[in-house]
Amino acid sequence: VKTNTAPPSGMRDLLPEQVELRDRATRAILGAYARFGYSRVETPALESLERLSTGEGGDNEKLIYRVLKRGGKLDIGAAKGPDDLADLALRYDLTVPLARFYAEHAGHLPDPFRSIQIGPVWRAERPQKGRFRQFTQCDIDILGDDSERAEIELIQATATALATLGLDGLTVRVNDRRLLAALVRSCGFEADSLPAVFIIVDKLDKVGQDGVRKELLAKGHAEQAVGRLMEVLARSESAGADDDLLGWVRETLAQHEADSNDGARVAEQRLSRLCDLASRHLPEGVRVAYDLTLVRGMGYYTGTIFEVSAEGYDFSIAGGGRYDEMIGRMSGRSVPACGFSIGFERVIMMLEERGGLPGEAGSRVALFHDKDADTDALLAAAATLRVDDRRVTTLVRRKKFGRQLEELESRGFDGFAVLEPGKELELRTLGGSGGASS
Amino acid sequence: VKTNTAPPSGMRDLLPEQVELRDRATRAILGAYARFGYSRVETPALESLERLSTGEGGDNEKLIYRVLKRGGKLDIGAAKGPDDLADLALRYDLTVPLARFYAEHAGHLPDPFRSIQIGPVWRAERPQKGRFRQFTQCDIDILGDDSERAEIELIQATATALATLGLDGLTVRVNDRRLLAALVRSCGFEADSLPAVFIIVDKLDKVGQDGVRKELLAKGHAEQAVGRLMEVLARSESAGADDDLLGWVRETLAQHEADSNDGARVAEQRLSRLCDLASRHLPEGVRVAYDLTLVRGMGYYTGTIFEVSAEGYDFSIAGGGRYDEMIGRMSGRSVPACGFSIGFERVIMMLEERGGLPGEAGSRVALFHDKDADTDALLAAAATLRVDDRRVTTLVRRKKFGRQLEELESRGFDGFAVLEPGKELELRTLGGSGGASS
Repeated sequence: VKTNTAPPSGMRDLLPEQVELRDRATRAILGAYARFGYSRVETPALESLERLSTGEGGDNEKLIYRVLKRGGKLDIGAAKGPDDLADLALRYDLTVPLARFYAEHAGHLPDPFRSIQIGPVWRAERPQKGRFRQFTQCDIDILGDDSERAEIELIQATATALATLGLDGLTVRVNDRRLLAALVRSCGFEADSLPAVFIIVDKLDKVGQDGVRKELLAKGHAEQAVGRLMEVLARSESAGADDDLLGWVRETLAQHEADSNDGARVAEQRLSRLCDLASRHLPEGVRVAYDLTLVRGMGYYTGTIFEVSAEGYDFSIAGGGRYDEMIGRMSGRSVPACGFSIGFERVIMMLEERGGLPGEAGSRVALFHDKDADTDALLAAAATLRVDDRRVTTLVRRKKFGRQLEELESRGFDGFAVLEPGKELELRTLGGSGGASS
Repeated sequence: VKTNTAPPSGMRDLLPEQVELRDRATRAILGAYARFGYSRVETPALESLERLSTGEGGDNEKLIYRVLKRGGKLDIGAAKGPDDLADLALRYDLTVPLARFYAEHAGHLPDPFRSIQIGPVWRAERPQKGRFRQFTQCDIDILGDDSERAEIELIQATATALATLGLDGLTVRVNDRRLLAALVRSCGFEADSLPAVFIIVDKLDKVGQDGVRKELLAKGHAEQAVGRLMEVLARSESAGADDDLLGWVRETLAQHEADSNDGARVAEQRLSRLCDLASRHLPEGVRVAYDLTLVRGMGYYTGTIFEVSAEGYDFSIAGGGRYDEMIGRMSGRSVPACGFSIGFERVIMMLEERGGLPGEAGSRVALFHDKDADTDALLAAAATLRVDDRRVTTLVRRKKFGRQLEELESRGFDGFAVLEPGKELELRTLGGSGGASS
């Protein structure tokens, strides 16, 4: 009897060709990050349920996979809800675990600490095309450095990693949460309404200016404030690449000097320098742009935020920012922190559309033999072929040999040899690649 | 307030140095396997609870982490036990998922299929030194090949991977479940008592011959049968490296020709050839030996079984064997299968004891600057150093500069430069390694 052998709903098996592309992309990204002095760390897939339920994770906490308590700890009769039945949970991102990791191990880590994390995270989302319940995240973070250097380096390293993958038409969009807050307040919104207004502005890409206006009004915000904010958004949308939008924001804020807006002035100067530095130090073809509508979803950002978009794609492929207070909330000791996360699955999807990654791969050959071939001779022949990095697969020759060769070529083999008693082994090229010769 | 920031009980955070060693070992192992034509595949960390509760996993099924059902599917009031509360579970090994993977995707895979899997598995074991609740397994398998070639290739590839890591004093011990069964039966045990007898014999390393005899008698096995089995075990223990133990088993079985023992004869011939082939085709320094007491715990093995031990260590560092029926039980189509699993955590522990892996690493340098250095000049200087694969970390120079240099050296840095306005950048060597020069 055939049982259901599909993976769990919303999760994937990865076939050899898929893993190979992911592995090559991973090597390229990690190689770029290593050259900037970053080191990889790992945390367990499971964290305590309590640690993942502090509110730090925003909406992701609603998508959590809880792990059942075991043995005597599990008391089903006394359980009032799922949280009474579980003690552990699968991580939904890599940022909360990193903050815990740093709070625990800071004494053994360099200061500042430049970390790379790449690994799976889990979210019980409604299954839909292109969205998976287990997916890979790839983050770099600098912990213990509050300078602009940390921010420009994260942008530079991420842009370099993406450029290494051959992605082009990249734009790094930057903003600062403090500047965004000052701008929204200057329109007439109250300070305590900011988080709610941010969430609505964040939908601009999806619902357009009209949608944002309607939702703001529906939520009861003052008509005049909404009207002013819409003017700001319109100004932003109409701005050309050479327009000094940041200068316009500076002037706009100067006119609304309701409170002494030191944070906003610092933020504006920092953004201005960041754009200037990035324009001179990013890899060729990567643009940088101030985007006054950039919000980023998570509540924990405290300053500079950034996102990378690629021409022709309506999603961002990387995002991050400064989150200076999260680690302090865990360790009791304030530590500045800033991170940039590559949307690994989206990048892989783009690479698959482009037919993979150029270069590399190496020679891959088949050694054919008859079903009753002498194993000793076969092993000896395979060993003579298996030199350098050449991959050698031994295979029983089939009756339909031509078809077998075609199949191998489609799997990326570039050469073959046939073991025949008393004959010398001859390595022949498969297809037009010309990669294999003895 | 400082909260508890330790990872969950029995699980680990991995620091940069630890991840680096693991990554290098992984690259070495995967490189060796690739040269034998193996390709990596991946399955999700979660499988359906049902799939992981068939009995196939033996005792590991008792150590399973169950994942709570979500939303409307969770009915706490109606639940009679943990299995009613959970629909998914974390995998406890890579073999059951591979069998499911193959049953699902065989039509898209080469035939035979040579797979590599490396990834975490989870078991809720009682925490103890050197044993973790999340740990890495590293398996290769050949699916769809029932020949001796599959077995010798798995042994050869695994021995090559371990030798690549610089491990020495390796012995591959081989046996065959059918031969072991015939031998135990020839002592006078009943066929249906074999699984229970195997479990006791498997403890020989831990409890010694005397312990095995006592436990067999305590379980009510016939005194005469136990006595004969003890003679066999004694003969095995006293056998020297040059003794023809397999020949002795052949003769012993020939004298007890109670039933026509075709399976045992096939197994004995196959083992004999396997030892012969291995002795000629394994990497230098790796021995092969027939071990008539080798059992391997899992119930699913059907023929040849193997284990690798290393001189000076009382645990095995790799193990595997033929399991020809598991995939058929899932897919309804019988597929021969054979696999070899490296005990990744044990290998890493051995490498750590030896001070890591020789070679490689690459140059790692620090670029020091003052806290108020010009970021533009710093980025330009870093870019001139960041050539080839050199890793360049920018760092604020501390007052105790000598101590800072010592710390870097202990972290594996081999060079540094200091950014000073108006001075040319000079890359200097750190410590005695001499690896960095401009």
